[in-house]
Amino acid sequence: MGLRHDKKAKQETGNESCQPLVAGMNHLRENGIVHRDIKPGNIMRLVGEEGQSIYKLSDFGAARELDDDEKFVSVYGTEEYLHPDMYERAVLRKPQQKAFGVTVDLWSIGVTLYHAATGSLPFIPFGGPRRNKEIMYRITTEKPAGAISGTQKQENGPLEWSYSLPITCRLSMGLQNQLVPILANILEVEQDKCWGFDQFFAETSDILQRTVIHVFSLPQAVLHHVYIHAHNTIAIFLEAVYEQTNVTPKHQEYLFEGHPCVLEPSLSAQHIAHTAASSPLTLFSMSSDTPKGLAFRDPALDVPKFVPKVDLQADYSTAKGVLGAGYQALWLARVLLDGQALMLRGLHWVLEVLQDTCQQTLEVTRTALLYLSSSLGTERLSSGAEMPDVQELKEATELRSRLQTLSEVLSKCSHNVTETQRSLSCLGEELLKNRNQSHEDNRSAQKIQCCLDKMHFIYKQFKKSRMRPGLSYNEEQIHKLDKVNFSHLAKRLLQVFQEECVQTYQVSLVTHGKRMRQVQRAQNHLHLIAHSVATCNSEARGAQESLNKIFDQLLLDRASKQGAEVSPQPMAPHPGPDPKDLVFHMQELCNDMKLLAFDLQDNNRLIERLHRVPSAPDV
Amino acid sequence: MGLRHDKKAKQETGNESCQPLVAGMNHLRENGIVHRDIKPGNIMRLVGEEGQSIYKLSDFGAARELDDDEKFVSVYGTEEYLHPDMYERAVLRKPQQKAFGVTVDLWSIGVTLYHAATGSLPFIPFGGPRRNKEIMYRITTEKPAGAISGTQKQENGPLEWSYSLPITCRLSMGLQNQLVPILANILEVEQDKCWGFDQFFAETSDILQRTVIHVFSLPQAVLHHVYIHAHNTIAIFLEAVYEQTNVTPKHQEYLFEGHPCVLEPSLSAQHIAHTAASSPLTLFSMSSDTPKGLAFRDPALDVPKFVPKVDLQADYSTAKGVLGAGYQALWLARVLLDGQALMLRGLHWVLEVLQDTCQQTLEVTRTALLYLSSSLGTERLSSGAEMPDVQELKEATELRSRLQTLSEVLSKCSHNVTETQRSLSCLGEELLKNRNQSHEDNRSAQKIQCCLDKMHFIYKQFKKSRMRPGLSYNEEQIHKLDKVNFSHLAKRLLQVFQEECVQTYQVSLVTHGKRMRQVQRAQNHLHLIAHSVATCNSEARGAQESLNKIFDQLLLDRASKQGAEVSPQPMAPHPGPDPKDLVFHMQELCNDMKLLAFDLQDNNRLIERLHRVPSAPDV
Repeated sequence: MGLRHDKKAKQETGNESCQPLVAGMNHLRENGIVHRDIKPGNIMRLVGEEGQSIYKLSDFGAARELDDDEKFVSVYGTEEYLHPDMYERAVLRKPQQKAFGVTVDLWSIGVTLYHAATGSLPFIPFGGPRRNKEIMYRITTEKPAGAISGTQKQENGPLEWSYSLPITCRLSMGLQNQLVPILANILEVEQDKCWGFDQFFAETSDILQRTVIHVFSLPQAVLHHVYIHAHNTIAIFLEAVYEQTNVTPKHQEYLFEGHPCVLEPSLSAQHIAHTAASSPLTLFSMSSDTPKGLAFRDPALDVPKFVPKVDLQADYSTAKGVLGAGYQALWLARVLLDGQALMLRGLHWVLEVLQDTCQQTLEVTRTALLYLSSSLGTERLSSGAEMPDVQELKEATELRSRLQTLSEVLSKCSHNVTETQRSLSCLGEELLKNRNQSHEDNRSAQKIQCCLDKMHFIYKQFKKSRMRPGLSYNEEQIHKLDKVNFSHLAKRLLQVFQEECVQTYQVSLVTHGKRMRQVQRAQNHLHLIAHSVATCNSEARGAQESLNKIFDQLLLDRASKQGAEVSPQPMAPHPGPDPKDLVFHMQELCNDMKLLAFDLQDNNRLIERLHRVPSAPDV
Repeated sequence: MGLRHDKKAKQETGNESCQPLVAGMNHLRENGIVHRDIKPGNIMRLVGEEGQSIYKLSDFGAARELDDDEKFVSVYGTEEYLHPDMYERAVLRKPQQKAFGVTVDLWSIGVTLYHAATGSLPFIPFGGPRRNKEIMYRITTEKPAGAISGTQKQENGPLEWSYSLPITCRLSMGLQNQLVPILANILEVEQDKCWGFDQFFAETSDILQRTVIHVFSLPQAVLHHVYIHAHNTIAIFLEAVYEQTNVTPKHQEYLFEGHPCVLEPSLSAQHIAHTAASSPLTLFSMSSDTPKGLAFRDPALDVPKFVPKVDLQADYSTAKGVLGAGYQALWLARVLLDGQALMLRGLHWVLEVLQDTCQQTLEVTRTALLYLSSSLGTERLSSGAEMPDVQELKEATELRSRLQTLSEVLSKCSHNVTETQRSLSCLGEELLKNRNQSHEDNRSAQKIQCCLDKMHFIYKQFKKSRMRPGLSYNEEQIHKLDKVNFSHLAKRLLQVFQEECVQTYQVSLVTHGKRMRQVQRAQNHLHLIAHSVATCNSEARGAQESLNKIFDQLLLDRASKQGAEVSPQPMAPHPGPDPKDLVFHMQELCNDMKLLAFDLQDNNRLIERLHRVPSAPDV
C-alpha cells in the first residue's frame, strides 16, 4: 500500500492524469454502457510522453449495453466493490427482484476512490469483508447519509461510522474537502438520494479543473492546499483559506518568497504567483494559536509482526505490511522536515520584513528629528526662567516646549525601534543556527531511505519465494536470517523516525510557537511605534504652523513699522500693555518729548527775563 | 560514463565520502606500502548507513611493503594508469634500471582522479592508448609542467596539451580550481618536481576540509561554488568570489533568500548562511557585463552512430555512448532550467529590494515635506512684492524661498520615485508571468527523462545480448527494431534538448540581460534620488536654523523691551536705527519725559510767582 501511495501523493497536483479515467467513464455513460466491474485492478496506469501517469479503465468483460431507462439483473464484479443490491444477490445469494441501474458503477467508483485515497477499504466488518458477509451487507445498507466509511472493530461489536477520510490519508485537506461530499453522495444505497452520473461528472470535472495554491500558515505551522478555479476572484481564494485556517480574510497577510504580497480581493486569482509545496504563499496572521503542526498517525502502530514459524505467504504479507508502514514513515519524515524548513524560512522572512519596517520607521524618525532640531530655538530663549510677559514669547515658548516634548518622544521611539531591531537580530541569528542545523537533520530521512532500500531487497526475495512449494534447508536458514534482518531494519527505521524526526519536530514546534509570539509582540510594538511617530509628526506639524504664524506676525509688524511714515500723534499715556506697534509708540513719545522740551525752553527764557526786573522791596 | 557522472556530480558537495580513500592511502603510506595498481576498477563504492557513498581502495594483489628509501623494480598495474617509467618497462618492454618509489601510486591516482572527474583518460594518442603505445609514452614523458592532459587528434599529428579540465567536466569551477594544481603536480614524470605523498595528502585533505558556498552571480547568470574553510574570514570568501567572478570585494553586494545580506569582512565565514545550489547567495553587482550564462558542449556532438549491420558488442558500446550523451543532456537541461529559475527569482528579489528602497525614500520625502510645509510661511508674506526694507524680513523671505525650492525639489524626487516604482512594478508583473511560464518549461526535462528511461531499457537488453554467441532470427529482428527505436528516442531527446531547453535558455539570457540593465538603471536612479533627498534635507535644516535664529531674535527683542525697568537715563537722541532693546528705549523715553514735565511744572510755578511782583518802570 505504501508503495502505491507514494505515487498517488506525488500526483495530487497532477490532476490532469485522472482526466482520461473520468472522460472514459463519461464516454461509457454517453453510450449507455455499464462497466459493472470497476475496481483498482481494472484501472491501468500508462506513462505519458512527459513521464506523467495516465489512468485508463480496462476489462470490459462484464460490461453490457443499456438503454437509459433499462435496468439489468445479472450480477458481476469483485465483491468488495459491489453495490449493496448486487452484493445481496451475488454474494449473499438472496432472491430479490431489484433492478440495477447505471448508477451501480458509481458505488464501485466510490469504493475504488476511497481505497486509492486511503489505502484501505471503506467498509470493513470485524475480521475483514470476506469473513463476515452479513455484517458487510449491513454496513453498506445501514450507513447513515453523509458517512463515507463504516467499520466493526470488535466481534459482534457496534458499527462505527466516519464522515471524513482517515488521518492516514495523504491527500491534502483541501482535496479531501472536495472529495468527501462526492464520496458521501455516490456511496449512497438509496437510489433516489444517490447522485446521478451527470452530477458526479460535473462535480469531479469541477475538481479536475481547479488549480492548487499552496499556503503555509506560519502561526499554525500547517501547509494547506487550496483548490480554486483560475477564473475565481482572489476574494474566493481568501474565503477558501478562511475555511481551512479559520483566519478571516481581513486578517490574512501574505508573504511570497520573502516579501509582502498584497492580494487585491477584486482581482482574478491568476494574479497569484505560481506556488509549490516548497515555495508556498506564507500566511502570517496575528492569531495567538499555538502551532499545531502536522497531525499524523504513528506508523509504528501499523507494523504487523512476523509469525515465529516459516510461512512463506504470511511472511511475504507481513513484510509487505511492514514495508508499507516504513514508506509511510519515510513520507512523514520528509513532510516533517519540510515543515520545519518552512517554519524557519517563514520566520526568517517575517523577521526580514520587520527589519525593513524598523529601518523605515527609523529613517522617518531621523528625518523628523532633523527638521525638529532646527525649530527648537536657542538656549537663551528656551532656558528663560523669568519670562517677560510678552504674549508672542509666551506662546512661542509653549509651542517650542511642545516641539521639544515631541522630539523627545520621537527619540524615545527611535530608541525603541533600535532595541526591537537588536532583539530581532538576535532571533535572526538563532534562526540561522537552527537552519544550518536543520540541514543536518535531513540525514534522518536518508537513514530511513537506506533501511527501506535494504528491506525492499529482502521483500523482493520473499515475493519470489512465496510462489515456491517449499525451501531447501539452506534456503530456509537464509529466509529465517532475512526475517531477523528485516525486523531489525524495521526497528531501526522506526527508531530513527521516532527519535530523530518526531522528537525534533515536536521540539521545533514548541520553539516556533515561542518565536512566533516574540515576533508578534515585536510587530505589535512596531505598529504602536509607527502610530506614535505618525501622531508626533502631525502634532509637530501643527505646532510648527502655529509657531510660524507668530513668526509671520512678528515679521509683518516689523515690516509695517519700518514702512510707516513719521507723523505727529497725540501722546500715548501708557505704552505698556499693548505691545503692538512698539516702534510707532516710540516715535510718538519722541515727538511729545520734543514739544515738552520746547515749552520748557520757552519758560526758561521767560523766567530769565523776569529775573532782570529789579526785585520789589520786601513786604 | 553518463551514468557514472550522474552520481559524481551529486556528490560534489559530499566531500566526506572520499575521505576513506585518502585516509586509506595515507594508512598505506604510513606503513610503507605501495599499492601499484590504483585505477577506478580497484576503488569500491560502499553505501553508508545514511545512504552516502563511501569509496575504499581494494585489490592489494600487487602491493608490497617498502621502506621509505627502498625502491621496487617489479612492474604491475593497468597500463593506462601506469607511471611512465613503469609503462616503459612493463608495456614497452624496454630495459631500464630506473627504480620506482612510492610516488608511482600518485601518478595512478592522478589518472584515476582525472578519469573520474571528466569521464575520459588524460593521455590519449590518436586511436586510443592501447593502439599507439609509443605515442602514449611520449605524451606522458613530454608533457610540459602544469599541463594535466595531452591528446593527439590526428594520425602522426602534433600533441596538444591542456592546462585545465575540459568543458564537459561537471565539477564546479571552484572545485576544478582546487583540483587542477594537484593533478599538475602528481602527473609529473620528473621525480624531483613531483609532489611527495605528504604534500599530496596535505593538499587533498585541505580540499576535503573545505565547505562549499553557492554564489549565483546575477549579472553573469552563473552559479559558482566557492570552496573555503569554515575558519576563514569572510574577507577570504569575498576574495575567492572575486577570483571566480572578477567582481572586486567592495562591489560585491549579496542577497540571501530575497533580502540584502551584509557580509562583514572581519567576521568568520561561519556567519554565512547555509547555501544550496537551489538556494545560493545571490551576488548583485553593478557590472555592465552581458550575462554569459552556462558554457557547455552540445551533447549531440558526443553521440556515436550505430554501425548498419548487427554487431552485438559494437551496438552495446554505441548504445552506452549515446545513453551517456543523453544523461549529459538531461543534466544540462536541469542545470539550464535551474539557471533560468535563479535568474527570474534573483531579479524578482532585486526588484523587491528596490521597491523597499522606493518606499523608504518616499516615506522620508513625505516626512520632510510635511515638516517643510509648516515652515514656508503664509501667503501675505511670501507674496509680498513691495517688500519694506527690513533686514529680518528680507532674510526670512530669502530663506523661505530657499525652503520653497527645496520642497519643490523634494516633490520632484518623490514623483520620480513613484515613477520608478511604477516601472519596477511593470517589470515585476512581467517576471511573474515568466515564472509561471517557466514551470511549464520543466516538462522538457521530464520528456528527456522519459526518453532516457525507454533508452535505458533497450540498453539493458543490449548489455545482456552482447554476452551471447549469436541471436536467433527473431531475436535479431527485435534487436534491429530496438536499434531503430533507440536511435529515434535519441533523436527526439536531442531535439527536445536543443529546441526546448537550449533555445529557451538563450532567449531568457538575452531577456535577463535587458532586465538587468533596466534594474541597474533604476538602482542608479534611486541612489541619485536618495542622495538628492539627503542633500535637500540637510540644506533645509540649515535654512530652517537660520530662519529660526531670526525668529529668536525677534522674540528676544520684543521680550527685552517689555522686561526693562524704569530707570533715569540720558535722553536717547536717535531711537531709530538700532532696533535692539526697543522696549527698553521706550521706558527710558518715558522717564525722560516725566523729568521734563516736572521741570516744566516747576518753571510755570516760578513764572507765576514772578508775575505777582509789581512790574518795574520801563527803562
